[in-house]
Amino acid sequence: MQPNIRIVLVKTWHPGNIGAVARAMKNMGLYQLYLVDPVDFPSEEASNRSGKALDVLEQATVVTSLSEAIADCALVIGTSARDRSIKLPALSPEQCAQKSMTEQQQAPVAIVFGRERTGLLNDEIQQCHFQVNIDTSPEYPVLNLSQAVQIICYEIFKVFQADKPNDSQLTEDDAYPLQKELIAFQQHLSDASQATGFINDRHPGQTLEHLQALFRRARPSKKELSILRGFLSSVEEQAIKKR
Amino acid sequence: MQPNIRIVLVKTWHPGNIGAVARAMKNMGLYQLYLVDPVDFPSEEASNRSGKALDVLEQATVVTSLSEAIADCALVIGTSARDRSIKLPALSPEQCAQKSMTEQQQAPVAIVFGRERTGLLNDEIQQCHFQVNIDTSPEYPVLNLSQAVQIICYEIFKVFQADKPNDSQLTEDDAYPLQKELIAFQQHLSDASQATGFINDRHPGQTLEHLQALFRRARPSKKELSILRGFLSSVEEQAIKKR
Repeated sequence: MQPNIRIVLVKTWHPGNIGAVARAMKNMGLYQLYLVDPVDFPSEEASNRSGKALDVLEQATVVTSLSEAIADCALVIGTSARDRSIKLPALSPEQCAQKSMTEQQQAPVAIVFGRERTGLLNDEIQQCHFQVNIDTSPEYPVLNLSQAVQIICYEIFKVFQADKPNDSQLTEDDAYPLQKELIAFQQHLSDASQATGFINDRHPGQTLEHLQALFRRARPSKKELSILRGFLSSVEEQAIKKR
Repeated sequence: MQPNIRIVLVKTWHPGNIGAVARAMKNMGLYQLYLVDPVDFPSEEASNRSGKALDVLEQATVVTSLSEAIADCALVIGTSARDRSIKLPALSPEQCAQKSMTEQQQAPVAIVFGRERTGLLNDEIQQCHFQVNIDTSPEYPVLNLSQAVQIICYEIFKVFQADKPNDSQLTEDDAYPLQKELIAFQQHLSDASQATGFINDRHPGQTLEHLQALFRRARPSKKELSILRGFLSSVEEQAIKKR
């Protein structure tokens, strides 16, 4: 199931950006691209920049006005309108993602991105219900169009993923030793440290404790534990031969 | 104050991507760009794609190997290693941002991005302490390089912005060794393993690699590393006496 969320690009100037947007969308599981009066489309540069998201470009819906692109939507979110006379309630990218994922169950959601240089015009902003603002450094606050789309789609995908049951499985190689095996290892470490004279039986101090804490934290797998014990055995053998 | 976090690009093929990365970084308040053996740099295309981040490109540090780029770093995070035999502990982009912002107080943090097509090689992954994975759609899981950088930098900027009184302060005891100190330890471990006969110089197999992966994952503190080296020295002494 794909989220019923469309990305709407208004009068995009640079075809490379359109391609990069298609890729950014598909990477995050979104497929509905709407192009309002694009300056140069279809174009070879758009195709090149789309990577393996050519299908998103080919299925893109080209329209002549924003109102056409959003006619069947119930929620329309515009991107960073900067300072405008008419202000919309502002959402962070996370809030935008939450709201979009909730509302797409009912009707298509549109997230609208303006022109590269001038953004959305006032009459376009007035067709949006919210604006989403990506926080940026004041030193250089203007993101490339496709990068802005990437961030918005990334936040949507996070919400989409969170709703799914976790399918991460443990493999055989990841198997962890039992507690009793770990304790036997700690004893082995202590024996070997004494065998080389590294630790004095009578004054062990905190050295061994530090080492043991380190190995607890590392959580060796069964396999790693067996390698460590092999090394310690080779150390003990040396020490015995010496005596 | 800029975060002491550097973005390291390994053998980037496409100069446009380098420019787009510079822009993505500056948009999110990051300025330290390291380029490991870039295929085409400096280049007009990189400059064009950087927008108003030409300063980031001009200040970029070009080096010939990953180890040079990260020698003075204490935390090195690699991007999405896909399926590899030696696994690094995985971070989400948010966790990567939290960890980087905390640890950059002590020493520079490096976030490493691999080649466009083939990513990071095994010997490069082995120089990282963690990997960061950006969740993507299984239909098309490969992000454009600059888009991946954008997401990572965006999450860092969120943490930077949140400007919480950072309660996760580093204490002297938690201080981490620099990469070059870790490499010296790995060498010491290898020497000691050979000295006891645990590992045969001519047929080291994967045993040592497994051990090294374990210690990378454990991330010994400076103090723990010095205890480990003390133990290894005592092991070597035994072996020498024996001869």
